[in-house]
This record gives sequence, C-alpha cells and structure tokens, in this order.
Amino acid sequence: MSTLVLKFGGTSVATTKLIESAAKIVKSEYDKNNNIVVVVSAMSGTTNSLIDHVNSIDFNDDSEYDLVVSSGEQITAGLMSLALKKLNVPARSWLGWQIPIITRGQHRNAFIDKIVPDGIVNDFKEKKVAVVAGFQGISSEERITTIGRGGSDNTAVFLAAAVAAERCDIYTDVDGVYTSDPKMTDKVRRLDKISYEEMIEMASQGAKVLQTTSVESAMNHDVNVNVRSTFNPSDEGTQISNDVSNETRAVTGVAYSKDEAKITIIDVEDKPGVAAEIFKELASSSVNVDMIVQNNFIERKMTNITFTVPMTDLKKSLGVLEELKKRIVYSKVLDEQNLSKVSIIGSGMRNQPGIAAKMFDCLSNNNINIEVISTSEIKISVLIDRNKTESAVNALHSVFNLDKI
Amino acid sequence: MSTLVLKFGGTSVATTKLIESAAKIVKSEYDKNNNIVVVVSAMSGTTNSLIDHVNSIDFNDDSEYDLVVSSGEQITAGLMSLALKKLNVPARSWLGWQIPIITRGQHRNAFIDKIVPDGIVNDFKEKKVAVVAGFQGISSEERITTIGRGGSDNTAVFLAAAVAAERCDIYTDVDGVYTSDPKMTDKVRRLDKISYEEMIEMASQGAKVLQTTSVESAMNHDVNVNVRSTFNPSDEGTQISNDVSNETRAVTGVAYSKDEAKITIIDVEDKPGVAAEIFKELASSSVNVDMIVQNNFIERKMTNITFTVPMTDLKKSLGVLEELKKRIVYSKVLDEQNLSKVSIIGSGMRNQPGIAAKMFDCLSNNNINIEVISTSEIKISVLIDRNKTESAVNALHSVFNLDKI
Repeated sequence: MSTLVLKFGGTSVATTKLIESAAKIVKSEYDKNNNIVVVVSAMSGTTNSLIDHVNSIDFNDDSEYDLVVSSGEQITAGLMSLALKKLNVPARSWLGWQIPIITRGQHRNAFIDKIVPDGIVNDFKEKKVAVVAGFQGISSEERITTIGRGGSDNTAVFLAAAVAAERCDIYTDVDGVYTSDPKMTDKVRRLDKISYEEMIEMASQGAKVLQTTSVESAMNHDVNVNVRSTFNPSDEGTQISNDVSNETRAVTGVAYSKDEAKITIIDVEDKPGVAAEIFKELASSSVNVDMIVQNNFIERKMTNITFTVPMTDLKKSLGVLEELKKRIVYSKVLDEQNLSKVSIIGSGMRNQPGIAAKMFDCLSNNNINIEVISTSEIKISVLIDRNKTESAVNALHSVFNLDKI
Repeated sequence: MSTLVLKFGGTSVATTKLIESAAKIVKSEYDKNNNIVVVVSAMSGTTNSLIDHVNSIDFNDDSEYDLVVSSGEQITAGLMSLALKKLNVPARSWLGWQIPIITRGQHRNAFIDKIVPDGIVNDFKEKKVAVVAGFQGISSEERITTIGRGGSDNTAVFLAAAVAAERCDIYTDVDGVYTSDPKMTDKVRRLDKISYEEMIEMASQGAKVLQTTSVESAMNHDVNVNVRSTFNPSDEGTQISNDVSNETRAVTGVAYSKDEAKITIIDVEDKPGVAAEIFKELASSSVNVDMIVQNNFIERKMTNITFTVPMTDLKKSLGVLEELKKRIVYSKVLDEQNLSKVSIIGSGMRNQPGIAAKMFDCLSNNNINIEVISTSEIKISVLIDRNKTESAVNALHSVFNLDKI
C-alpha cells in the first residue's frame, strides 16, 4: 500500500463536470489500494472574481483578503468530496485550519511552517480519502492565511512530505514538462524525467507549468513530483526527482522570458560599496533585479554597471537611480526595452565543456546579437533583441538535439 | 456605552457598493460610541449559485453542503471588514469556528447551542467592530455547520443574547413589519411596535420579513429586535419586544398564505386513537398539517376529519391516507385545492370579546364563504376560496381599523 498526493489545478476543476472527471482519476488510484490525499485549487475564474470583489472595495487588508480568497478552494474541496462519495469512494474535506496547516509570515504571502497530519492519517485507517483545500493555512492568531506563490502546488508538496507519500502527482492542463514552449517551436518534446535543479531553473527562466517555490519545496523535502494531464491520465507525465541520469544530454530545455528591460549606469565611481548601495536600494523598492554585468575601466577609476529588470519594474528602477544621484557619482543612466532573455538549462552541462561556446556560436550563425550573458552551474542565459526570441529558441532547441525526430 | 448587533441581509449586501453603504450605517452607530457586532448574510444570489454547484453533482452529503454553502457568508464578512476599515472603523471578521458558535443537531439544519463571545468582547476594549459571518457554526467534530431556517437572523439574535446587546437591528430591504402585505392592499401601515407573540404568528401565517424561529429565539432570550431598512437607515423601523401596549388595538395585522389544500376523510370510525394514528403517520412522512377540524356524528359512531396541508404536500398526504386504509376504517377521502388561509393577529383580542364574530360578519358581508376556522389565543384563521384572498385581506384590514388614514 502506497500513499499518494494528487493535486488538481484550477483548469482541472473549472466546472462540476470536470470535478467529477477528476474524481474518477482519484478513484482509479484509490482502487489500487492506495492511501490518497487530494489537494484542490479554486475552480478556474473563482479566485479572480473574489479578488475583483476585494479590489472593488479598494482598501488593503491582507488578513481579510485571505479570508475572502481562501473560500475558492473551500468550495472545490466540498464539491470534490461529494463527487468522490458519488463514486462510492469514502472521503471528507479538510480546510487548512482543520488539519491544521500552520503557517508563518505575512498574510497573503505566508509560508507553511508545519502540518499535523494526524486526522488525515487516522482517516486512512478507515480507507477514507482526504480532500484538502489548497493554498490556505492558519496563522498563530488562528486566522486564515494564504500561502502566496506556488499556492496549491506547495500545499500538495508539503502534505506529501508530512504523510511520507511515495509520489505527488500535479494534475494540470498539460501533460508534463517540455523541452521548450510549444508556442515557440513545434519540435518540442515532452520530458519523461527532469531533476529538481533543472526544473527550478526552467521555472525561474519562464516555464509556467510549476512555480519555482513548489519545486524547491519538493527538493528540500525529497518529494517525487509528477506533472500529469487531467485530460489524459493514463500518461505518466514528467517525473521530477533527484533520480535522473543526464549523462547523455547536456541541455534539457530552452526557456525564455520576453518582458526584460536593460539598464546601464555609465561611469560609476569605482570604489567599494557602490554596487552594494545601488542594489540594496533597488531591492528595498522591491525591484526584481536579474542579470548583472560590470565592466571596469581600471585606468579611469570608473565602471559601467548593467543589469536587467522586468519591464514592469523599469520606471520604478529609474526613479530609484535618480534618487541615488544625491549619494553616488555617475554620469548617466541608459535604458533599453524590447529585450528577451533566452536560457539553456541542463544538469549535464556540469560535465560537458564547451556548451557556452556552442550556444554563442549558434546565435551568431543566426545573426542574433548578445547584449548580456549570465550563467549558473546548470544554466546559461543571454539577453537579445525581442524580435529574435523565436528564432533563438528554435536554433538552440535544434543545436542541442532537443528536436522531436 | 451600549452594545448593538446589526444584521444585514442578502439584498443589503448584494454588491460591494451596497456593502460599502451598509458599512456607513455601521459607522454611524459606531460613532455614537457603541460596541458593535455586525452579522452578514451571503451576497444575494451567492448562496443559490453555491447550492446549484452542489446539486449539479447530485450526491447528498450535508457536511460537505455546509462547507460549500457557508463560504458565501465568509466572503461577505471579509468584504464588510474591508469596507469598515476603509471608513477608518477598526474591524475584524469572525467565522463561526473562530468565535466559536457551537452548534448541535444535524448538518444543514443545526441549531446554536452556545456562543463563547470572549474574543469579540476583548476586541470591544480596542474599539474594534466584530464582523461575523452569519448562518454558520461549528459542530463538536470541528466541522462547519449551517443553521437552517432563520439563518443569519438567528445568528444575530443569539449573538445579541451572548454579548447582552441592548438592541439587535435586522437591516433588510423593507422598512419594518406592516399591518399586511403591501402587494394585497395599498392601505397597509408600518407598525412601530409589535410583540414577539404577534410577530411569531405573523411570520408563521405568511409574513416573510422574519423567520418564526428567529423571533422565537429573540423572545426566549429577551432580545429587542428592530426590523429596519438598509436603504432608509434614519427610519427606526419596527420594534419587536415584550414592551408593547396594545390596549387600543384588537388586531395588529392581517396575514395570508395562498397555497393551501384541504383534505377531508369521510366517515372515519369514531374510536379513540384513530385521529392520533392518522396525524402521526402524516408527521412521520414530514407532512406539515395545519388547521384540523373534526365533526362528530354521535348517532352514527362516525366522524369526518378535515385538515389543511401546503399544496406541495397534497400528493404525499393522499398517498399516506391510501396506505392507512389497511389499518383504519373510512369511506373516502376528498381533497380541495385553490384555497387560501387568511388570519387576523393581535394580542389585543385576548381582552376584547367579539373579534371572531366581527371577522366572520365582515367576510359574510363580502360574500366570502368560510371553509374551515382555526383559532389560537391571539389569532383567528379562516380557509377561503383563493380567488377571494385579496378582497378578504382588504375587507379585514378596513374593518379592524388598520387602514392608513
């Protein structure tokens, strides 16, 4: 007998008909004599309409926001339990406070501190499926919290750790993780396996199937995650775990993000602490700085500092720099919009030299100019003209042998 | 400093704009230095759409029903707190389980057993308004319950008792309790005061402004209830309490219900226990029997038993009687549809003789035939042809001096 966590996203439970279909998937795993925890998101559209209600009152209070918005998952939990019972699968719903899923941190962006799964585990003895409302928990003040980014996926991963589940299946509207975005190239392949690290890089570089936070939680708790399609449940999807032998492939996927802006500060006084001051100031204004490059001109005691930010943060960033002019010396600030970041990701590049050179060569052969480069152990990102995104993704996808044959 | 409970019904909080208007009413009471508990219903339409979701799955489980449906009041509680804070009124939302409002009995039809208002009363010290989600509580199994008929009105009345409130204001879409239904006669007057007993009879005889259960709770807990209009808050509405001097009026109101059916069992064997057996059987089939009349023909040792049921229960009742034919002796069953029950209600009739005669005389003068009569201490009801309902209500309203001058 195994214990499984099955999580269904918003599009998988968008209507009561779809909830009944998802219940059939649960039943098929239940009938194999597994202990089952089901985690559900809000029905697609519900969360947005609840947020609209909150926004229309136009007063910010995150604890009341959490109370209102968490009702979406509450509704699905009740409906999923009904759908399971209709199939003769014993079930009961659990809200965050009932389990409890204890959270810390700020309302609306809380994080899971501790789950006490005793009630759920007790129900396993009666062969009862636990249907858990995702995305929510309870604070030390006994108020309802929501857990921000990663939401219900994170609930599923933490529950899988708490009940020592063999597997955490994330059911969604795609059938797994792909080598790249199918919208950019029709040669994408579905990956059968991917490592946590690779998945984290894929997610943070633009792949939308899972939030970075959830994959990090899975890695930290050693939870085997499968990304699977609700609409094709016989397919096993993509397995995310440590147990991946990547010796044969240097690159696992190509990711991109299209809303990048580049800022260059020209002729910054080159003395210790200046860069720190700049980026501290940006961070305290919640600007999400990504790639950073610094070119020193030693003879002139000056330096240029270049970095990228999401387009949405550009205006705020320029304001911060204008303000900083009172304290640090520089000649001017240049900004450039309409840029994309394209990244290749793969654990295999640790063992294979020359991957970066091959990437740059490929882009150059396709007349794509590189503005900024940044690298990590298992990722190389380049900033390019946004109009070239598609051709860059396609060219890299081919040159690293990711194309479907 | 007084403590007030203010309850807003579904039409009073149907949109976020209306919630903001209701919050202004709360603020005006708060600014008079009162401790305030606000009880909210679900936004009009929300409960029905949640019930539709549950029904579409077509499996009956009352605990999951409660989980889903209670989210409606949860949403309003959060939005009302936001609206109050926007007006600089300190507030926090409370769900049934957070207070707690402890219930007993069946899911979906639970009743309030105990309220522990310590958290709310503590918040009074910080001048904080408690915004309570109506209609819900928590069972001894720590699951969410809903409290059936009377719903949020009942929550308000019980909270008023728990915090020893001076007043419980029920804000709704009408400005109080009327002498009769404005749809039937344009001569209706709004009552400034009415006794609990009278209000209970008015509600159970067809007046829809409050559920009988809520008024009974108010009477049992000695809670002063005011029925007031959200859309005209400067008006004080109708006050329901024991403190009513009715010496001058014999009749307080005229109520009616249009969906009555009459059943007569002809030539029932007249021996002890027969009537008991009939009505026990009907009750165990959940038929709601109302007026009962029995005519004995002593010389024949036979009797006719007549009673009324709601139209919706007619078919079921006839089935029960058919089944009973195996055990009791009678010749046949007659049924008559298209009947109305018209009632005059007033504590004053206790001290004034001749009220019944005056009623029957009035109806006779208007060519309205009486089929069945039933009376209580403060109420006289007659069953008449449904087509005569309006003229009966109008005639009685006039003859008992209820008309607006």
